[in-house]
Amino acid sequence: MRPSGRAVDELRKVRLTRHYTRHAEGSVLVEFGETRVLCTASVEGRVPRFLKDRHQGWVTAEYGMLPRSTHQRMQREASNGRQGGRTLEIQRLIGRSLRSVVDLEALGERTITIDCDVLQADGGTRTAAITGGYVALVDAVRFLLDKKQIKTNPIHGAIAAVSVGIYRGTPVLDLEYAEDSEAETDMTVVMNDVGHFVELQGTAEGHAFSPVELSQLLDLAKKGVNELLMQQSQVLKA
Amino acid sequence: MRPSGRAVDELRKVRLTRHYTRHAEGSVLVEFGETRVLCTASVEGRVPRFLKDRHQGWVTAEYGMLPRSTHQRMQREASNGRQGGRTLEIQRLIGRSLRSVVDLEALGERTITIDCDVLQADGGTRTAAITGGYVALVDAVRFLLDKKQIKTNPIHGAIAAVSVGIYRGTPVLDLEYAEDSEAETDMTVVMNDVGHFVELQGTAEGHAFSPVELSQLLDLAKKGVNELLMQQSQVLKA
Amino acid sequence: MRPSGRAVDELRKVRLTRHYTRHAEGSVLVEFGETRVLCTASVEGRVPRFLKDRHQGWVTAEYGMLPRSTHQRMQREASNGRQGGRTLEIQRLIGRSLRSVVDLEALGERTITIDCDVLQADGGTRTAAITGGYVALVDAVRFLLDKKQIKTNPIHGAIAAVSVGIYRGTPVLDLEYAEDSEAETDMTVVMNDVGHFVELQGTAEGHAFSPVELSQLLDLAKKGVNELLMQQSQVLKA
Amino acid sequence: MRPSGRAVDELRKVRLTRHYTRHAEGSVLVEFGETRVLCTASVEGRVPRFLKDRHQGWVTAEYGMLPRSTHQRMQREASNGRQGGRTLEIQRLIGRSLRSVVDLEALGERTITIDCDVLQADGGTRTAAITGGYVALVDAVRFLLDKKQIKTNPIHGAIAAVSVGIYRGTPVLDLEYAEDSEAETDMTVVMNDVGHFVELQGTAEGHAFSPVELSQLLDLAKKGVNELLMQQSQVLKA
Amino acid sequence: MRPSGRAVDELRKVRLTRHYTRHAEGSVLVEFGETRVLCTASVEGRVPRFLKDRHQGWVTAEYGMLPRSTHQRMQREASNGRQGGRTLEIQRLIGRSLRSVVDLEALGERTITIDCDVLQADGGTRTAAITGGYVALVDAVRFLLDKKQIKTNPIHGAIAAVSVGIYRGTPVLDLEYAEDSEAETDMTVVMNDVGHFVELQGTAEGHAFSPVELSQLLDLAKKGVNELLMQQSQVLKA
Amino acid sequence: MRPSGRAVDELRKVRLTRHYTRHAEGSVLVEFGETRVLCTASVEGRVPRFLKDRHQGWVTAEYGMLPRSTHQRMQREASNGRQGGRTLEIQRLIGRSLRSVVDLEALGERTITIDCDVLQADGGTRTAAITGGYVALVDAVRFLLDKKQIKTNPIHGAIAAVSVGIYRGTPVLDLEYAEDSEAETDMTVVMNDVGHFVELQGTAEGHAFSPVELSQLLDLAKKGVNELLMQQSQVLKA
Repeated sequence: MRPSGRAVDELRKVRLTRHYTRHAEGSVLVEFGETRVLCTASVEGRVPRFLKDRHQGWVTAEYGMLPRSTHQRMQREASNGRQGGRTLEIQRLIGRSLRSVVDLEALGERTITIDCDVLQADGGTRTAAITGGYVALVDAVRFLLDKKQIKTNPIHGAIAAVSVGIYRGTPVLDLEYAEDSEAETDMTVVMNDVGHFVELQGTAEGHAFSPVELSQLLDLAKKGVNELLMQQSQVLKA
Repeated sequence: MRPSGRAVDELRKVRLTRHYTRHAEGSVLVEFGETRVLCTASVEGRVPRFLKDRHQGWVTAEYGMLPRSTHQRMQREASNGRQGGRTLEIQRLIGRSLRSVVDLEALGERTITIDCDVLQADGGTRTAAITGGYVALVDAVRFLLDKKQIKTNPIHGAIAAVSVGIYRGTPVLDLEYAEDSEAETDMTVVMNDVGHFVELQGTAEGHAFSPVELSQLLDLAKKGVNELLMQQSQVLKA
Repeated sequence: MRPSGRAVDELRKVRLTRHYTRHAEGSVLVEFGETRVLCTASVEGRVPRFLKDRHQGWVTAEYGMLPRSTHQRMQREASNGRQGGRTLEIQRLIGRSLRSVVDLEALGERTITIDCDVLQADGGTRTAAITGGYVALVDAVRFLLDKKQIKTNPIHGAIAAVSVGIYRGTPVLDLEYAEDSEAETDMTVVMNDVGHFVELQGTAEGHAFSPVELSQLLDLAKKGVNELLMQQSQVLKA
Repeated sequence: MRPSGRAVDELRKVRLTRHYTRHAEGSVLVEFGETRVLCTASVEGRVPRFLKDRHQGWVTAEYGMLPRSTHQRMQREASNGRQGGRTLEIQRLIGRSLRSVVDLEALGERTITIDCDVLQADGGTRTAAITGGYVALVDAVRFLLDKKQIKTNPIHGAIAAVSVGIYRGTPVLDLEYAEDSEAETDMTVVMNDVGHFVELQGTAEGHAFSPVELSQLLDLAKKGVNELLMQQSQVLKA
Repeated sequence: MRPSGRAVDELRKVRLTRHYTRHAEGSVLVEFGETRVLCTASVEGRVPRFLKDRHQGWVTAEYGMLPRSTHQRMQREASNGRQGGRTLEIQRLIGRSLRSVVDLEALGERTITIDCDVLQADGGTRTAAITGGYVALVDAVRFLLDKKQIKTNPIHGAIAAVSVGIYRGTPVLDLEYAEDSEAETDMTVVMNDVGHFVELQGTAEGHAFSPVELSQLLDLAKKGVNELLMQQSQVLKA
Repeated sequence: MRPSGRAVDELRKVRLTRHYTRHAEGSVLVEFGETRVLCTASVEGRVPRFLKDRHQGWVTAEYGMLPRSTHQRMQREASNGRQGGRTLEIQRLIGRSLRSVVDLEALGERTITIDCDVLQADGGTRTAAITGGYVALVDAVRFLLDKKQIKTNPIHGAIAAVSVGIYRGTPVLDLEYAEDSEAETDMTVVMNDVGHFVELQGTAEGHAFSPVELSQLLDLAKKGVNELLMQQSQVLKA
């Protein structure tokens, strides 16, 4: 039995609120149950140095948690003077995932930065960030298309992400904090809309997982991602 | 005429939403028009080193802006590796202001940290932070009283803050970004509920201000702070 | 009774020594009693990045305390790896104050940096720095005029700064350390030579101050600043 | 056809040289073809702060590349003043992987740090580091057993790691740099000696991979890890 | 012919002013011609961590240059966020030199920090710092003896330092900036009052120096150090 | 009697292995007994900013120790966030020494960086680094000559370095760790192939050294450097 009473293959209630703040070209509040992440997409007319004169754009991400988004207050990374390893790992993951559906040449010499800031954490912040960040990215691209700054849509697919894990011996979908902190195995799965894998990050905190368990986890993930892709699609039609 | 059509002594619409997030002992979303700041108050059972064995508590504040809370995306301070001068200045101001109404000995050997994170900026983030931070502080203290961790209320007054400035030659109350970025003089006024000054920070960006102008500005500030104190009081009764 | 036996409206003995060191375009040792600050003005033929191609100059300040300028040795900020919040706050204040009397376009595309380094601290280092920094700035501008690097004097006014505060219930002028460390209210006042305010930073360490007290403090400040302006004027004639 | 002429399921020549340096409790040079990583295991009689009074030990890892271990010289992270995101990600992966086979309570209150420093890079440095780091860890534990500092062996399994990827459309085992830099999909697989997964990190650089491709990759990985486990076992018997 | 007209074996005018500032236990302004360094000695009742429970004291030094002590303004190290290599090298040299004449056990569990801050630079700041730092150290020790915090004098010798170099082919004593910036060889010599070497740091900027040249340089240094030791002795008698 | 049984004027067994790694233009493993340092020389087609438009090249060095190259594990400087004073001092020494034999104009607008990374430390790492770094530098220059990127050899001499010191009252050559950690006086001597001094850094850890002792130390150093120069010459002929 899961703490929330959810079925093993049941997502938390997911909400995607577009235009949540007003300055960013894309701004989405994504909620996976009690997890709330603000994803903004910012367009800037320049590229990082390593892409100078390469006639292409860039999509990147930054991730942060508000100090009291968590049960215990965490130290503010800005005041620590450095971003921790977990933060860097997550923002690299978000950036790679989103780039997998963008034609960077078609984007032109500009950068879209997806800022994912966790207002409230209850497990699954990175998967919420990717799922919401995708919607913010689409909004920013629509902004560019509307302003006729680009002619063709550089986004050639959709992605969403979900966590799966083995909780008290049973594979479950979309772990909340109470499950996550106790899970023996934890996996982040990023998939696209043709059912292929973009990122797969499985970690055995407690015990290693067998090929059979892997297979069960991936089935759950597929179901979850499909539901998320549907929700993204609906909210983007609105 | 002000860009918003407000009267010179008119505050923007102010909203104070308590219990905005769930983990913090106090959590308030404060809105001054389009400016939105999330203020959380976190209680921790220890004091900074410089207060070791002094049998007293501490109240402190940290301030941050989400990278795209602003018109142009700002660099994330965590990734820069240091908090800027403006950030440090503002969080020192918030902390001093809030400490002015707390009996630190009555608080006992614990620290309350007020995190003020700007979700959307449209001028006046520091005054919103102080005004909302006060409400979060009260909620955190009520939490301690409820849990019987302290016996008497260490808060002995109320404070609120507002900005005033000279915009196109006229003293006005509560500047929004369009006014602020153009104002010749800008002042932050923190006052308590007996009409005394806790902090006064006036800066002449454009031209120095005369004693007469100062007097006009302080009158506007007094009116604004009184309205804010009333709103705080009402929301805290709810 | 003040520790020094001074009258409530009496400045400490102030000395301004020009040409204190030899390399800088302006170099002034300023002493407010036992407080000694070395202010140098350095001219460089470039502007910060944010002023690129704006056809104007810049005036900025940096502030530091020698580790043993104080009663207890402080840690060296260079070895800590960052300037503290107080330092950043003070150097921003000095820079803003001095810019208020400079026509940055007339200065041309160059930067004047005022370095204020405290050799000995006894209260009032920031007001001494502004008062002495102004003299160093004038000397640097005279250097530019002498060398015919600029044609017209970009300085269009004079400023000086003084602290006022409430010490044991009485408003007093120009607090020394023994008073400052005990003062209930502390205010830094920067004024120009037509009696207008450039910066006003009042802080209620102990108890909030009333409008009447504010008025008394500002009267004291005005008297103090006038005397300082006179001394600046005399020393600049020499 | 692979650049090296290897079969698709063929590892590079792997060498594990124990006692490569003399000060560390465990010291192993691991070579996967031209990739050479020095793995040392250091025992220290204390634990990180977050494990204080928890009556357990810790195993952690640090990773670095010599500046000219690569084709182009990289900047030295020590002189940059921070470890990059890739470095932090890899050292977190190595640490988690190795902890998965250690009973931290049986280790007692001590820390074993596995330093993995890349002398020469030709793809697969992280998998080499895990594979060699395991041998260094075993040597350090044997040192503790020999010195009778612990009574029972806290290591309860063996792990090894290998990379797999899709190179020019074909799944291949153990990518060298020429393949890696061009691979469309890249996966790091850490497995234990009962054929279960400890870590799985798949990234679609070029195109997302299908469930069928995933299955092929995991089969290759299993074959590779088994051969590595055998080599570890042999070298540890010597 | 030297720029100053000095003989090859002639020191610049040296002045040692004790009690230059008031808070430090020792405070000496040392001048070698136009080079001016403020050396303060601060006593603190604790030792660095690596000396914990070793029943001994510590003597250390820190060095800094005011940004405009030099011909061109240098960046402030505190604002750069790190001390440069030259600074660290010099402060390590000063610390080692001074420790060579102190019995650290007799000093007891306390630290004396010698801060050497260059107010004006004209060559030879490190040798001035050592020479003046020694006098400040003696004053701090006398303070401890006066206060009866220690019973016996832990200083068992005297040291002074001077630079020598080959300027336009000729060995000269005590190089000023005009010479130093052009010298082919430069050597810092720290000697004690029995004519032995404490530190010797020779660098061939232009051409390597022969054993014969080394011998000439050391003779000059010996003469210079002897004169400095005499001056220290006289000023300490005053 | 020395711990190793060596004669007082006897070097440890020295080995210079060229082409130790494959990517760098020069790559030398240098061993002085148990001390092993990997020296790579990397050529890059740009110069540091301070040499912009000066039509010359640059030679510089970086130094690092692997965390467990030493008896006790040292903290990794990359993870500390800064290079220590000792590291900076050593890499500055290596760079200056190597520049003394290079005609930087003949090198053209390129930089050669010598990275010296200590794999195993047993005393004398800096002298091994200079001695081995010279060979790596020669190999990098030969690479440039072979590729016809430069026409004339910019290296106009040879250098090598050795340590000497007073161990238990006796001057000895090439101190290993057991001697070094106990030596009363320690000197690094860098000499060229005409017997002149390039760098001389003597430090009296225990007692100051007399002119007679200095002379004995320099004689030992000369003998040691000559043998090292011979070995360099032989290995470069191979």
